[in-house]
Amino acid sequence: MLSKARIKYIKSLQVKKYRQSEQRFVVEGAKSVLELLGSDFVAETVICTQEFINLNQPTLKRYSGEVLEVNESVLSDLGEFRTNDSALAIARMKPNNKVQVNPDEFALMLDDIRDPGNLGTIIRVADWYGISKIIASEDTTELYNPKVIHASMGSFTRVAVYYTELTNYLQVAAVPIWGTFLDGENVHTMDLGKGGIIIIGNEAHGISENIEKLVTRRVTIPRFGRAESLNAAVAAAIICDNLRRGK
Amino acid sequence: MLSKARIKYIKSLQVKKYRQSEQRFVVEGAKSVLELLGSDFVAETVICTQEFINLNQPTLKRYSGEVLEVNESVLSDLGEFRTNDSALAIARMKPNNKVQVNPDEFALMLDDIRDPGNLGTIIRVADWYGISKIIASEDTTELYNPKVIHASMGSFTRVAVYYTELTNYLQVAAVPIWGTFLDGENVHTMDLGKGGIIIIGNEAHGISENIEKLVTRRVTIPRFGRAESLNAAVAAAIICDNLRRGK
Repeated sequence: MLSKARIKYIKSLQVKKYRQSEQRFVVEGAKSVLELLGSDFVAETVICTQEFINLNQPTLKRYSGEVLEVNESVLSDLGEFRTNDSALAIARMKPNNKVQVNPDEFALMLDDIRDPGNLGTIIRVADWYGISKIIASEDTTELYNPKVIHASMGSFTRVAVYYTELTNYLQVAAVPIWGTFLDGENVHTMDLGKGGIIIIGNEAHGISENIEKLVTRRVTIPRFGRAESLNAAVAAAIICDNLRRGK
Repeated sequence: MLSKARIKYIKSLQVKKYRQSEQRFVVEGAKSVLELLGSDFVAETVICTQEFINLNQPTLKRYSGEVLEVNESVLSDLGEFRTNDSALAIARMKPNNKVQVNPDEFALMLDDIRDPGNLGTIIRVADWYGISKIIASEDTTELYNPKVIHASMGSFTRVAVYYTELTNYLQVAAVPIWGTFLDGENVHTMDLGKGGIIIIGNEAHGISENIEKLVTRRVTIPRFGRAESLNAAVAAAIICDNLRRGK
């Protein structure tokens, strides 16, 4: 049984302020919880149904934290997502460790991505394309927002997201800095190189002026129809697909 | 001034049942309203600020419907999106006209896309890549949902979405039928051909069994990392980018 105080605590973690002060976050859904348990995140509590326990004995045996069994209705009341009727976990946040981009690898940089669904989808895209480092502006949505964790579909466990002031970071970066604009080189035909930082701009305003000045490779995704722009996560995915496909 | 009855009517159009009975829908935000007014949709009422009127005199002069001026707070209360403080329009739905796919063109087919943000983003992707026809299963989210219209960023005015039973449609289609699976041909290297129907599967369950049987080209987006799958709109975008880039 979950105490009222415990329920209140878990629900409080839906709010950024409380996540920050507790340095804990919530992971919802069987798939994401299993990815969490298989990762280097520290999970403290798993709250799940009897069925989840039965189906995942080997994983839960390797896990040394607390497991609380509840029924489906308790579970779907507990989280942000009413559709979750299987498992939920409380885990510790990681410290905001600096990531370095080596000359032979690609990383993504997020210039003020605000939509949690977009951020989660970008993390999933990075993971699909084998990109393990993301540098995010301080105004980018918080990684531990439940909607980000949900949209990342477990990929938050494999992609490091480092929040920092971007201009300072870029000024000392010794790799090509890519930005997507309407007047850049065609990503379908350009020489892609072996590594660099790919900047994804804000959903409404694109790449900010301060950051644009530091871009060394202006890139364009060719357009064949009439939409004015692409969604941020979609643009990130298309750039990544072009990088990986080679020539 | 807006009457209480009018406000109630506009708010009712956020609900599918009322949209269906009225055959009207709401478009929010300056950009989308301007795209609507430049399209072949019939707009009946534009509700907007004095500033919107001042900025868009030429467009509004060509428009013969009703224009109601309100202040920003009335406007942001009226719609689904609190961030809209500029313009909102009420427009007539179009009939669900059948679309035919010719052998020399590509179209998208949506097998039960449920998330309105995904549907809107897919419409925007189609528009970017010059694809003007989408065939959607009857369970796919309704085109006129405010979140779909919003995420499409005006592209709903240029892409026809036809709702129908998919197996019947495919059985008489005389073009290649593409489906994305983990065991298909590599989209980076395969011969793409000149046209066909590209099926995008449901967010959780992928392409349904009945539809899979009718697929004539199994396609794979190569994976370089560890995510298990891609978001539906992202997958659609990557396929489209590969189709258009040529060889």
